[in-house]
Amino acid sequence: MLSLRSHLCGQWVSGSGAPQILVDPATEAPVAEVCSDGLPLEQGLDFARREGGQALRALDLAGRGKLCDAAARLLHQHRDELLELGMANGGNTRSDAKFDVDGAAATFAHYASLGAALGERRLLEDGESVQLGRSPRYAGRHLWLPRRGVALHVNAFNFPAWGLAEKAATAWLAGMPVVSKPATATALVAHRMAEVLAPALPPGVLSFVCGSAHALPGLLRDQDVIAFTGSSGTAARLRALPRVADASVRLNVEADSLNAAVLGPDVLPGSETYELAVRDIVREMTQKTGQKCTAVRRIFASSALAATLGEELVARLRDVVVGDPRDERVKMGPLASAAQLAEVRAGTARLATEARRLLGDEALVPVGGVPGRGYFVAPSLFASAAAGAAVAHELEVFGPVATLFEAPDDPEAVAELVARGRGALVCALYTDDRRFAASFIGAAGPYHGRIAWGSTKVAAQAPGPGMVMPELVHGGPGRAGGGEELGGVRGLAAYSQRLAIQGDRALLDALVAPKGG
Amino acid sequence: MLSLRSHLCGQWVSGSGAPQILVDPATEAPVAEVCSDGLPLEQGLDFARREGGQALRALDLAGRGKLCDAAARLLHQHRDELLELGMANGGNTRSDAKFDVDGAAATFAHYASLGAALGERRLLEDGESVQLGRSPRYAGRHLWLPRRGVALHVNAFNFPAWGLAEKAATAWLAGMPVVSKPATATALVAHRMAEVLAPALPPGVLSFVCGSAHALPGLLRDQDVIAFTGSSGTAARLRALPRVADASVRLNVEADSLNAAVLGPDVLPGSETYELAVRDIVREMTQKTGQKCTAVRRIFASSALAATLGEELVARLRDVVVGDPRDERVKMGPLASAAQLAEVRAGTARLATEARRLLGDEALVPVGGVPGRGYFVAPSLFASAAAGAAVAHELEVFGPVATLFEAPDDPEAVAELVARGRGALVCALYTDDRRFAASFIGAAGPYHGRIAWGSTKVAAQAPGPGMVMPELVHGGPGRAGGGEELGGVRGLAAYSQRLAIQGDRALLDALVAPKGG
Repeated sequence: MLSLRSHLCGQWVSGSGAPQILVDPATEAPVAEVCSDGLPLEQGLDFARREGGQALRALDLAGRGKLCDAAARLLHQHRDELLELGMANGGNTRSDAKFDVDGAAATFAHYASLGAALGERRLLEDGESVQLGRSPRYAGRHLWLPRRGVALHVNAFNFPAWGLAEKAATAWLAGMPVVSKPATATALVAHRMAEVLAPALPPGVLSFVCGSAHALPGLLRDQDVIAFTGSSGTAARLRALPRVADASVRLNVEADSLNAAVLGPDVLPGSETYELAVRDIVREMTQKTGQKCTAVRRIFASSALAATLGEELVARLRDVVVGDPRDERVKMGPLASAAQLAEVRAGTARLATEARRLLGDEALVPVGGVPGRGYFVAPSLFASAAAGAAVAHELEVFGPVATLFEAPDDPEAVAELVARGRGALVCALYTDDRRFAASFIGAAGPYHGRIAWGSTKVAAQAPGPGMVMPELVHGGPGRAGGGEELGGVRGLAAYSQRLAIQGDRALLDALVAPKGG
Repeated sequence: MLSLRSHLCGQWVSGSGAPQILVDPATEAPVAEVCSDGLPLEQGLDFARREGGQALRALDLAGRGKLCDAAARLLHQHRDELLELGMANGGNTRSDAKFDVDGAAATFAHYASLGAALGERRLLEDGESVQLGRSPRYAGRHLWLPRRGVALHVNAFNFPAWGLAEKAATAWLAGMPVVSKPATATALVAHRMAEVLAPALPPGVLSFVCGSAHALPGLLRDQDVIAFTGSSGTAARLRALPRVADASVRLNVEADSLNAAVLGPDVLPGSETYELAVRDIVREMTQKTGQKCTAVRRIFASSALAATLGEELVARLRDVVVGDPRDERVKMGPLASAAQLAEVRAGTARLATEARRLLGDEALVPVGGVPGRGYFVAPSLFASAAAGAAVAHELEVFGPVATLFEAPDDPEAVAELVARGRGALVCALYTDDRRFAASFIGAAGPYHGRIAWGSTKVAAQAPGPGMVMPELVHGGPGRAGGGEELGGVRGLAAYSQRLAIQGDRALLDALVAPKGG
């Protein structure tokens, strides 16, 4: 069986101890194993800080962009292989695997362009010079400088390729070396990516830790960064770690999110905006078997529309063929692991205690695969009263599961119900009513990192709320973790120190000019 | 005796329980008392969120700026009274008290101008619109929206006026109501400010909690913010609070800081840059009796310069007259409390275990005041070897105390020694050598929030590294807490949610236009 390794101190190393087994979630057949005791974690972090940091800081932003460009090209070259691994170890349909792998390549490509555009500079300016003294000669300005540590990237199981890429691209462009740690259950894709990328990069720029590595965050220092995607429980433990709390290790968290889709009272069945909403909701519920941090979990539609929408969603979701992703008829694969299956079953059972089930309690016969094996679930749709619901606003069931609510017509009242999710990554808003949208966005906006507004004239090209684009920030307040990633150049801030500098304007101008510093 | 009250739910309320006594640190005479058991904290937070938040969000940025303008004018009207209170309860000289109170007014005035300049808009844009779809019609943009909670401001004892003002100005302009909590020992100035300001503001915009209020942070919710200035120990406790860790209450920390002053090898005794450095260091060590988070704690000078600089500093520091600030001969008052005196004495004793004392162990006879009373200390200057020192890079002695090191001539080597402070608010750099400065700033910058670069042509107008200007960010990485305040419009980010919004470009443009939203 394939034995997965880690990449530390510029070389591939194997751990010892009891192996963890990675399986094909469609068949439960083992596909790889990983042992992670005794890895040289402390030395690996030091090597990354020293060698990787120096290599990146020696490059201007164009040079760092070229590393992202090389990464994008390598992912493209190895695309088919990576898609196969996503299908074999992630339960992905080929389309799901493309969403992950192509998203990774597109994100690297975006930061490659950004690096090229920023060009020869090493210091990134923040805003203009301001006069501080009696005369214009005494001035102040702000710069972004790369932090002098290592960026530890702890990724979630659902996006092994994209998670690695979106975090690494921003860290590298900012000038910080990366230690990437995938979730073990679906590590096969990230492992192959690391095998492909690491040799193409200067030593220490990309390190990779496979398997359990609970000791890692405790080894960090004050100039280091942790970017974590995962559960809010783990996030809370990371925040309370002595190293994090005492040394102000910077922590960027993306955690749970009960993303809403809201249809304005103006949306009529059959309209383009309505059709867009239905397409989006079905896709966001079922793509990657609902295992997306940006998936739609709560649907709000006016009382006039809710029943019709419910019937339409049930009809379309019922048509989603569930089974082994290698079977071409299949549109939705299994959940990623036995643990996820148990959690989704427990979660839908909790939802069922307060909500009416519109779909999902029929016996499921997966297409293809091995009879009786695999972590399959059918899509579940619930209906509930928004004001009285508790579980539906509180519990993120990480599978193809959503709850439909009748919403009031007043946008601020809808926003208040949406806000009961206490902070989310994204909200999908469907309306052609500008006043409704303005009020809703003003009231619901502070609870979100992103709002995707679907309307008639963009229905044909809107990519859906679940697609995270590198141009826009990704993250959300409250239970979504309070972090922020991507957003073009904004994404570099997490890996940079903003420095105010005051002094002789002529000297400061010379300092920040390209080739300066 | 004056009994201090809190301002909650739009009214002045008194606590019960055992009183804490505030004293005049020059005479140890009681000046006020405060009881803080049983305050309606939870109701006060709710009132601020509801009434204060609504009032601020109903205003455009110009309107919020007018609140800051009113605050600046009121502080000016009550200036003499506030200066007297700073002298009576803070141990401030009149000059120290001006630094605090005038700094507060200037910060309010800065944000008043900024609000006026931002004008009629309610939504603050972040960057330009970007094309996201096949056609330019599908676009994305970013907005800053006020968080829908309350901002809890926990201030340090050393700047009761400025601390309240700089935090409140940014929160109000961003659209968030404030609950301000001063350090109890020196609360008299902040208490009078709250009495003056609260009636001039819409209800709930400024609440004020006087005395102990350990329960406050535990009552916060996901849309709230804590801005904390104080010790890194308390900061670590706040980070680990369940509400903070689980609900992602946003926490902005400004903690310990071992600020350095670095003289480049080009600086010759008698030069303008040298004289600037000496003036700055003496002021930063003794202003507010060294109780400034931006005070110089470590001085780095080349081996050729260190002995001369040490003699010069000793001579000037010896001339600083210590005593009761009401005596006009006095240039440096007492420390703020008995606790601070005990800490400074313990800290200098620890420094003396590894460093040579150049000044400070002579018997001190304070001028004026009551014989045998008051928390007086003389300035202390130590000399030590930078590479071997441990305590001097680790222990922030919060008084008129600094350590002088001989520094290598290589700027990166100096930066490495400075970085042993593991993150600071500010570094003062004195040099006319551009190459030295560029290398030093590149290497030391990531460990700082601000570098104040003194050189010949600005020697006459540089305000000194210890003055925090509202135009520049204030905060620092690592042990300095990892937070960020001020910096003009940048300071609003801590109280705002950055929202990405994607959709029809024409609809988004209409949304963000002034009067939109």
